[in-house]
Amino acid sequence: MSDTLGVRPQPAADITDWDYEADVVIAGYGIAGVAAAIEAARAGADVLVLERTGGWGGAASLSGGFIYLGGGTPLQKALGFDDTPENMEKFMLAALGPGVDEAKIHDYCQGSVEHFNWLVAQGVPFKEEFWGEPGWEPPHDEGLMYSGGENAAPFKDIATPAPRGHLPQMQNKRIGEQGGGYMLMKPLTDTAESLGVRAEYDIRIQRLVVADDNRVVGVVAKRYGKEITVRARRGVVLATGSFAYEQRMIEGYAPRLIGRPAAAIEEHDGIGIRVAQALGAELAHMDATEVAFFGDPQMMVRGILVNGRGQRYIAEDTYPGRIGQATLIQQDNQAYLIIDEAALEEALKTETSSPFFRQPPTWAAETIEELESDMGLPAGSLQATVEVYNRHAESGADPLLGKKPEWVKPIGTPVAGFDMRNFTAGFTLGGLRTDLDSRVIHVTGEPIPGLYAAGRCTSGVCAGGYASGTSLGDGSFYGRRAGRAAANDGPASS
Amino acid sequence: MSDTLGVRPQPAADITDWDYEADVVIAGYGIAGVAAAIEAARAGADVLVLERTGGWGGAASLSGGFIYLGGGTPLQKALGFDDTPENMEKFMLAALGPGVDEAKIHDYCQGSVEHFNWLVAQGVPFKEEFWGEPGWEPPHDEGLMYSGGENAAPFKDIATPAPRGHLPQMQNKRIGEQGGGYMLMKPLTDTAESLGVRAEYDIRIQRLVVADDNRVVGVVAKRYGKEITVRARRGVVLATGSFAYEQRMIEGYAPRLIGRPAAAIEEHDGIGIRVAQALGAELAHMDATEVAFFGDPQMMVRGILVNGRGQRYIAEDTYPGRIGQATLIQQDNQAYLIIDEAALEEALKTETSSPFFRQPPTWAAETIEELESDMGLPAGSLQATVEVYNRHAESGADPLLGKKPEWVKPIGTPVAGFDMRNFTAGFTLGGLRTDLDSRVIHVTGEPIPGLYAAGRCTSGVCAGGYASGTSLGDGSFYGRRAGRAAANDGPASS
Repeated sequence: MSDTLGVRPQPAADITDWDYEADVVIAGYGIAGVAAAIEAARAGADVLVLERTGGWGGAASLSGGFIYLGGGTPLQKALGFDDTPENMEKFMLAALGPGVDEAKIHDYCQGSVEHFNWLVAQGVPFKEEFWGEPGWEPPHDEGLMYSGGENAAPFKDIATPAPRGHLPQMQNKRIGEQGGGYMLMKPLTDTAESLGVRAEYDIRIQRLVVADDNRVVGVVAKRYGKEITVRARRGVVLATGSFAYEQRMIEGYAPRLIGRPAAAIEEHDGIGIRVAQALGAELAHMDATEVAFFGDPQMMVRGILVNGRGQRYIAEDTYPGRIGQATLIQQDNQAYLIIDEAALEEALKTETSSPFFRQPPTWAAETIEELESDMGLPAGSLQATVEVYNRHAESGADPLLGKKPEWVKPIGTPVAGFDMRNFTAGFTLGGLRTDLDSRVIHVTGEPIPGLYAAGRCTSGVCAGGYASGTSLGDGSFYGRRAGRAAANDGPASS
Repeated sequence: MSDTLGVRPQPAADITDWDYEADVVIAGYGIAGVAAAIEAARAGADVLVLERTGGWGGAASLSGGFIYLGGGTPLQKALGFDDTPENMEKFMLAALGPGVDEAKIHDYCQGSVEHFNWLVAQGVPFKEEFWGEPGWEPPHDEGLMYSGGENAAPFKDIATPAPRGHLPQMQNKRIGEQGGGYMLMKPLTDTAESLGVRAEYDIRIQRLVVADDNRVVGVVAKRYGKEITVRARRGVVLATGSFAYEQRMIEGYAPRLIGRPAAAIEEHDGIGIRVAQALGAELAHMDATEVAFFGDPQMMVRGILVNGRGQRYIAEDTYPGRIGQATLIQQDNQAYLIIDEAALEEALKTETSSPFFRQPPTWAAETIEELESDMGLPAGSLQATVEVYNRHAESGADPLLGKKPEWVKPIGTPVAGFDMRNFTAGFTLGGLRTDLDSRVIHVTGEPIPGLYAAGRCTSGVCAGGYASGTSLGDGSFYGRRAGRAAANDGPASS
């Protein structure tokens, strides 16, 4: 067995001894892996999960825990929000493109209520409480929140706004323990264990093993430098996460993230993508990225965000991830917050104004003209922006960008400016192209026999846009599909 | 031999009869293909070019013919422009990223003068005349022009401006005959023919043929529905162009171009990329696109371009391809030109104001306020933009975007507005990752033995940005490398 193969597929004929065997072998024990494991086990398969770190969890466990669900989930209903799969689909098509996988979004919306119920049935807790303030996540253990700009311009006029960020009930959130992601992963891995799913840790996959008929029949992995062979009687599921920490892939596919990876774990080295590419797998949307923005939403909503030319460019009351994408991709990462003293004080009094975001203003001035000059903006530029904003704000309107009236107030003085250039970081959304059964698609357009994938090593429901919860959402949804399809694939278990 | 393989590599052992044989087999007879053919033949190889249409030329033949060259070419020197490889590199690094292949750009700049001399030696004519007006191309047969915004903000302050758009001398340009692209391709194909290069037409490659040791040893192609086998004793060069016309790839990789392909030919179906992907080839910058903008540069430079919010966003005197990219990617394809009557009349009098661009204004008004209202922009928005512009234009300055003083004049009345939404179209710049010898790189990071590629089926010197001439430039430059490397590869000719 040669190490020089790298990620190249290894012929099964080379392998005489298998160190491990299972019907379904899953690489990665994050959200996609655990969902696949549960469904594969329920479908009667003997399941083995290979995890490269010392424990289950992946990026999911460390995340906020949002799962993007809707179409009328029991939680939405209990909290008084109307939603339908069609309405959800309308939003997702508008907000997550261009170029989204329309079949996948349709399928995801149609199955969303069932998926919520499934999560609950596995023991994932959701508290019946809604959090309606601007921000990335609720301050306590609330279960539902807007997480994609559904209730902000332009989407509020495209689809009926409904919150779809479903959050597993957190415990001791403020001290960083058992946050939403943990409270999602814990019951799922408990369920998997109770179903007899086996897990082996400290094992990194290296390449796929392929039979003469091109079917994937196992993986070669490494544990502490030693090569290990793992036979998959029915299928292999890749659930190894994004490529946010693979420098060459970032440079080649998503260069705007150079030097700013975030919200992914260092294990996200794209290995699942690369082993499948070596088999001829098709990719999709490799440039797509989630983009976090480290500004306080409670402050942003009360001020105006301007670009490097002093111009407004986005409704400040939208999902902060949209602000991040617009800033990084469309404004060359140039952003400044202009907010008057009164609004700033109000923002800092809110419950979700986090010390994480708190910093002194970069500039403080008695007039907009003075601020403009201090910021080095061309004479008249910021003044013009504020004049136009204030002119309409007098009547609570924002015809330029459609910020909701409740947040529209003229900007007074004294006034502060916050330098928010380079406030972005993100993770990658592109990866393997998969079908609705999570089969990995070859460049021929046909599935690769025996190979499945889910989670951020695949291209999911997002392309150009993002909403919090879509990663754990499509990871768990298509992880389940992968587990079921793999369990029912291939020859009978020997 | 099975058609069900699609683009999957075919084992050489399957093939008992070869319909054609050569040392070096080149797929595609456009710029990259012909450059490869010449250099392979000069290196002593027996060369066969397979072209899917009925004749040589590819997209190159139909193009304007710009080749991006610099660093002090004889043409630059003769016309009084100073340039160095280092200065050229500085510009390309700044303008063509983020995420450019730095090694490739360095190599390309270092070799640029030699490459110009080589083109001249093959009979490509360049007239010693410079064209300095704004526009996509010269009106006559001038040989040199700015073609990437080198002399506009922000690049004019990053590197010493030098024109690098080198144009083969056209003949009868106005009637569409023997334009720059044709005058580039004709002498090159003549040279290839004189060197004994064989060409077979109406042959479409289907897949690569691979020996037991994973070496590429030929291609399977189709001619009028019949499969043809072609043996390559030394190497295969893929030179099949972009994927601008492959709908699934456009949706998956470059969705902003959905419905707007341009400046590429319908044969650009990504086949060269896909056959190599099926072998595990690495890709790069699949989202990158050239973006044409169908506005008259002579008009744009004399007015101001504003986005859907009535804000300026780009120096109007830059390379129109940068305007296209900024409009499509950063302004959601929303653009309007605001120009006063006097400036419009002046623009229409210029020699390069083409009937192609000419159209009546969408709106005409006596005041900016009236125009703003007619355009449906928020009250005060366009007025503020024009006020700030005019305030500085009085002294010939444009501190917001750095348009050069010669083009900065206050906007008077009466004034016209041109709706330039959806004025964009483009072709793709992403593709196979290749090294400096044009070897196709596998996802392991190693070259695939026997496989070379150049032109727009590869990722070349561009990533996020573009300059006219970089496609024919890196296509010809790395086409030559591919031909030389392939000719010197593999076992001795039998």
